[in-house]
Amino acid sequence: MKIVALAGGVGGAKLADGLAQILPPEDLTVIVNTGDDFEHLGLTICPDIDTVCYTLAGLANPETGWGRAGETWNTIANVEKLGGPAWFRLGDQDIATHLERTRRLKEGQSLSQVTRDFCKAWGIQPTVLPMSDSPVRTMVDSDEGELAFQEYFVHRQCQPRVRGFRFDGVEVAEPAPGAKEALKSADAVVFCPSNPWVSIDPILKVIKNMDKPVVAVSPIIGGKTVKGPAAKMYAELGIEPSVLAVANHYRTILTGFVLDNADSNIESVIKDLKIKTLVTDTLMNQPADRKRLANDVLFFIGSL
Amino acid sequence: MKIVALAGGVGGAKLADGLAQILPPEDLTVIVNTGDDFEHLGLTICPDIDTVCYTLAGLANPETGWGRAGETWNTIANVEKLGGPAWFRLGDQDIATHLERTRRLKEGQSLSQVTRDFCKAWGIQPTVLPMSDSPVRTMVDSDEGELAFQEYFVHRQCQPRVRGFRFDGVEVAEPAPGAKEALKSADAVVFCPSNPWVSIDPILKVIKNMDKPVVAVSPIIGGKTVKGPAAKMYAELGIEPSVLAVANHYRTILTGFVLDNADSNIESVIKDLKIKTLVTDTLMNQPADRKRLANDVLFFIGSL
Repeated sequence: MKIVALAGGVGGAKLADGLAQILPPEDLTVIVNTGDDFEHLGLTICPDIDTVCYTLAGLANPETGWGRAGETWNTIANVEKLGGPAWFRLGDQDIATHLERTRRLKEGQSLSQVTRDFCKAWGIQPTVLPMSDSPVRTMVDSDEGELAFQEYFVHRQCQPRVRGFRFDGVEVAEPAPGAKEALKSADAVVFCPSNPWVSIDPILKVIKNMDKPVVAVSPIIGGKTVKGPAAKMYAELGIEPSVLAVANHYRTILTGFVLDNADSNIESVIKDLKIKTLVTDTLMNQPADRKRLANDVLFFIGSL
Repeated sequence: MKIVALAGGVGGAKLADGLAQILPPEDLTVIVNTGDDFEHLGLTICPDIDTVCYTLAGLANPETGWGRAGETWNTIANVEKLGGPAWFRLGDQDIATHLERTRRLKEGQSLSQVTRDFCKAWGIQPTVLPMSDSPVRTMVDSDEGELAFQEYFVHRQCQPRVRGFRFDGVEVAEPAPGAKEALKSADAVVFCPSNPWVSIDPILKVIKNMDKPVVAVSPIIGGKTVKGPAAKMYAELGIEPSVLAVANHYRTILTGFVLDNADSNIESVIKDLKIKTLVTDTLMNQPADRKRLANDVLFFIGSL
């Protein structure tokens, strides 16, 4: 079974890792959100690509889900001593990724070339693609005005109230080379449990037509997000955060929907939307949960 | 006594540190070579400024003389794993300096502003000035063609034979703000024991008129350099490397010359050039040697 998975950061990376543990590498393409990318300290930082790659390579920090395991923080501590911007905590190993990526981008390589080379260096076998080689930057419209995504997300710790989103550059962004081909040959598309507003939506706005069965795994469990501000965003946008809200968000393109056992009472409402459902344990606290959930999702896809 | 010291890297930094231990901060200005500066991995790296500052701040690696004490190497190790350029060994703490400097330069700050702010952050009290805020880049004419200085010095480890030097940008480079004023109020100028060809000459080409007594400390002892390629450069340029060669190099501007006890036999030849001499122990292997030599130099200046 050939799968294209759309992923944002930590949650998406975990399911992508589960899928990578089951599928032959040539049958999995992970298309990653780049709307969170930003330029900082002169570096082009791609948080979601890095989280997905570090996770697939077994290099990710198991405590945080993002950044590198066994990380040290000597560079950023010294940037701080010099009065530089230290709110985005870049580890020493992680900085190598940004330095070398920035160097290559400036030399004229595309983000997908750089990502492919990095995957090779890290021993990652499935294909990881940025959603686009053109910069797309998520802008958060908030009660404090429009904020660049990382300014909102990390610097302001999601405190401003969200009113909407704009994906700067999305109008001209083409899917990264290989994305259309991967979608064409895929049996299904999996939306990993990532933020619908700021992780999956930007990818969907670039990859306009999928024309394949789509299965989404809810990032919301019991009205809350495992990680990140998706539930808070729903609430601030006037929508009660729930698996139903997620299913509704995607309803026009969804074939199947995977929700947690904790939300089994909502299954029938989603079925009424003519969306097929799988109720299972969607939490991925332990490494083994990734493969288990991926297995459930693939089995579900096979049954559609 | 107000002193302006001209310095390159390790040797120059040590004498500057000795002078800083004796003179009140307001009486010492160190003007540092920037001809070794280069752009690498997207960073603007100023090796001599950093060596001088780390040394004055007590942050320098006591083993190498350059770089930071207690350094870690996690970033460069990971750049190397990604196939990036790792021949210039940048430590994790050191990278913070380059990242934050590059960020500020891109924001429009001048190199002297950045250097002043960094000195403040590091608790350095004497004034440290780059020779110029405009980029000057030392180019080495060699038997393998023209090489950028760090390409010759670090990447090629000084192996190509030197035929001459060119200081790209020197024609339009003005002395950094404060340099002329410091020279005007100085009682004397000290050439620290740095490479005449590639550390002191570039400074002299920018700071054209000094109009003050000049005392040079020989970087060559017994026909050899303590560190670096000065002796090799003299030989390849057809000049026998010796303290006499150094004195001759500077003869038109020199009032006094400090040479090592090991070269006392050459003192009379230098006196014949109408240059006053001080013969003393010029090696600075131990931290205490810096203050001792600085004291000797200042006493010598007082006697001129």
